[in-house]
Amino acid sequence: MDRFMQAAIEEAQAGLAEGGIPIGSVLVHRGTIIGRGHNRRVQHGSVVLHGEMDALENAGRQSAAVYRECVLYTTLSPCPMCSGAILLYGIPKVVIGENRTFMGEEEHLRARGVTVDVLQDPVCIDLMSGFIKRSPALWSEDIGSE
Amino acid sequence: MDRFMQAAIEEAQAGLAEGGIPIGSVLVHRGTIIGRGHNRRVQHGSVVLHGEMDALENAGRQSAAVYRECVLYTTLSPCPMCSGAILLYGIPKVVIGENRTFMGEEEHLRARGVTVDVLQDPVCIDLMSGFIKRSPALWSEDIGSE
Repeated sequence: MDRFMQAAIEEAQAGLAEGGIPIGSVLVHRGTIIGRGHNRRVQHGSVVLHGEMDALENAGRQSAAVYRECVLYTTLSPCPMCSGAILLYGIPKVVIGENRTFMGEEEHLRARGVTVDVLQDPVCIDLMSGFIKRSPALWSEDIGSE
Repeated sequence: MDRFMQAAIEEAQAGLAEGGIPIGSVLVHRGTIIGRGHNRRVQHGSVVLHGEMDALENAGRQSAAVYRECVLYTTLSPCPMCSGAILLYGIPKVVIGENRTFMGEEEHLRARGVTVDVLQDPVCIDLMSGFIKRSPALWSEDIGSE
């Protein structure tokens, strides 16, 4: 297991333990994690702090020169909002735990020149498939679905 | 002046008075403002709370049924992140103060079926052009530019 994806999974598991949506993310700059995060919808009543956004927020204010040397790791395929944040800050590479339970904007990212790797990690798939089965309404809310 | 754009401008002006980036937004549901916000980069050290994101966050957790009856007003053309949030939550219409000082993802929004109106409001243009002249480095940071 990639150690950065492992760190993203630990974030997802921490979110689950808090009663939240189990999606985690880490932002890595030149081999060092500079931001960790997980979905905060339940915990903070937040509609903007998806896992990836929370990792970006916790990394703090950075220059474009830093972002362009970063890799974002996320346990789940990034939604339109998180993909937009990746494009805004010019993050050149995203490593995704899985896209079986939710397909985000991977093609849009690739079309804009972002490198997108998908691991189809069974731990990530189990985390999300179990959560979606237990909490379908909460999951629909998180992705703006009916 | 449209009263909702006026409310967004008041948010931008409040941000400026706090020493922040003068971009404001309001989320309107069936003719009522349910969220107001402005850029919080300086005030909160936030990299995710652009004006539109702050308005969405302050509106709190909403269902897709609410978002699909909303209009988002913003003083400036929405960046990739904010445009992604609009798409995530299925907000069908965006009213933009101006796109002269920054052109966001308007074409992407339109391609996904969002109605996009641009007012080219002189107050919005003055707020941003003055800010960019005074604080070019801060503005570059906010839009992930070198």
